[in-house]
Amino acid sequence: MITTDILIIGAGPTGLFTVFEAGLLKLKCHLIDALPQAGGQCSEIYPKKPIYDIPAYPEILAGDLVARLLEQIKPFEAGYTLGERAETLEKQADGSFIVTTNHGTAHHAKVVVIAGGLGSFEPRKPAIVNIRDYEDKGVAYIIKDPEAYRNKKVVIAGGGDSALDWAIFLADVASEVTLVHRRDEFRGALDSVEKAAELAKLGKIKLLTQAQITALHGHDILSGVVVQHNDREKEDTYLEVDAFIPLFGLSPKLGPIGNWGLDIEKNAIKVNNAKDYQTNIPGVFAIGDVNTYEGKLKLILSGFHEAAVMCQYAYKIIHPNKRYLMKYTTVGGVQGFDGTRKEAKKEVVQSIL
Amino acid sequence: MITTDILIIGAGPTGLFTVFEAGLLKLKCHLIDALPQAGGQCSEIYPKKPIYDIPAYPEILAGDLVARLLEQIKPFEAGYTLGERAETLEKQADGSFIVTTNHGTAHHAKVVVIAGGLGSFEPRKPAIVNIRDYEDKGVAYIIKDPEAYRNKKVVIAGGGDSALDWAIFLADVASEVTLVHRRDEFRGALDSVEKAAELAKLGKIKLLTQAQITALHGHDILSGVVVQHNDREKEDTYLEVDAFIPLFGLSPKLGPIGNWGLDIEKNAIKVNNAKDYQTNIPGVFAIGDVNTYEGKLKLILSGFHEAAVMCQYAYKIIHPNKRYLMKYTTVGGVQGFDGTRKEAKKEVVQSIL
Repeated sequence: MITTDILIIGAGPTGLFTVFEAGLLKLKCHLIDALPQAGGQCSEIYPKKPIYDIPAYPEILAGDLVARLLEQIKPFEAGYTLGERAETLEKQADGSFIVTTNHGTAHHAKVVVIAGGLGSFEPRKPAIVNIRDYEDKGVAYIIKDPEAYRNKKVVIAGGGDSALDWAIFLADVASEVTLVHRRDEFRGALDSVEKAAELAKLGKIKLLTQAQITALHGHDILSGVVVQHNDREKEDTYLEVDAFIPLFGLSPKLGPIGNWGLDIEKNAIKVNNAKDYQTNIPGVFAIGDVNTYEGKLKLILSGFHEAAVMCQYAYKIIHPNKRYLMKYTTVGGVQGFDGTRKEAKKEVVQSIL
Repeated sequence: MITTDILIIGAGPTGLFTVFEAGLLKLKCHLIDALPQAGGQCSEIYPKKPIYDIPAYPEILAGDLVARLLEQIKPFEAGYTLGERAETLEKQADGSFIVTTNHGTAHHAKVVVIAGGLGSFEPRKPAIVNIRDYEDKGVAYIIKDPEAYRNKKVVIAGGGDSALDWAIFLADVASEVTLVHRRDEFRGALDSVEKAAELAKLGKIKLLTQAQITALHGHDILSGVVVQHNDREKEDTYLEVDAFIPLFGLSPKLGPIGNWGLDIEKNAIKVNNAKDYQTNIPGVFAIGDVNTYEGKLKLILSGFHEAAVMCQYAYKIIHPNKRYLMKYTTVGGVQGFDGTRKEAKKEVVQSIL
């Protein structure tokens, strides 16, 4: 059982900054995220894209924003359960909570904060009847370890950045890479499109456009796929393959959190912003893009503010009999759990004669 | 008459960031501040001190924070009335407002936002009965132009950074600098204390400690001050001087805003945070440290959030019949009023064969 003061579900920018605000109050945090790394959408979907509305950053790449946040929260030594999805929430007799993931990892905390963004990002799956039978047996929607494809015959489906980039990368790893796309045109960064075009000309990527995979075959594990051409005059093609990787993007889903008894409105969790961003379950808060209230703006900067406010109330739940006096960091400095200390240069008081 | 969409009272971090959020909505801003430069406390009181709780800045000097904000809002070409204090608010028949400063500058806008921080910073004045008679006639509480003291006999009173730093600076400008302080010890940055000590030893600064100025003399303009020693056995000293500059720090005062009919609680303006940070006067908002509501945190980051929310409602007042669809800056870019445009690199859509 992992034990912490504040359990944060979602390790995007809002979840990460919560670690800092909690740390100032000497509260420890642990984060759960379905993605294999911290940063949420910023890391997974658009790390190389600029954001212009983070205060005092005229421009910052989403990936850099996450890197700066990780640096800022480092002194507060958060724990992480990554690549696992929070599945169940159980209220204990003493008011605390146990949250268990789809991998069975259990976490115990007095306060749970849902900072789940638009939800956990689930891959969009193609509509092939028996595709679930081959998941982890040749079919994958996310590439966790490219080495798993060394000297394998791989079919990638999709027409965006992800499909292009992985086709390019695996061209040097797999024995054969086929890229299948329903249209003639690809949509992606200019670099990626040009590089893929070059590899296709060199024969290092085999291209099948105006086509899609419609059937999977194999005894227990995947051994072949059927390619159907948009031009139905052409006959279906059968390809012998070791792996089929459809990369059709990720789609956010509130997921199991939707069954926790929370007050939900249009896929978002209702909170009382007038006070503390607490949900209808006392001790469970929701901050950032996952919550809703009158006037809600889905801005990263609003998630930061909500984290700061929420931590003050979390403190009251965790330490009902203590009073906390807020000190500005410029005045009080920042005392890390790792023993580090940052503070403004002290003034001296002395005679000058 | 200066005309704008949103008139912002206070050019601290919150007021400055309002220009950015308003700019995204294509609304123009004008700022009024009693201080002679933008940045509020960050520029005036602690420009060289670090802040640790600005999201994604593990550490930033207050002065640098202001510089980055000014860079971020540059495309939106805000107007400034600096060195003047907003004095009166008059509601017009059409619901708009005219705000006039202590110098008589009039501003007209449909929306007024008070982002006044802890108030306007007023110098603390020593308790000398006739001091007001000599203001601008030898007595000054803020040094606007050091050249005004060239070859003059100057007495500075105070024991902090400001007194030390100006005594050091004027040692090379004035013909005589006397530093008077009630105690023996000075409180300031180590550099300043050491430098002042060195100049005192060289005789370039004359030091009078355990003493204070108790009376001013002069026909129409200041010509002398009386120094009273803590040790009353010592006789008072009379100094012939051209200038007396008491530097006892600045103290924040809500000031004339307190008489605008706003709902005030403990020196802060009450707002409805559940929605829009509007005050009891429709069309007048209060954001940042100057406002109060249940759960209010006086953090710079909360001011930023409040600015973003408030601008959405200001838009509805200014354009009651238009609908605005918020676009993420990563998706929609930033279009400056100065013709500049920032945007993420576009994806290309093209065939790769």
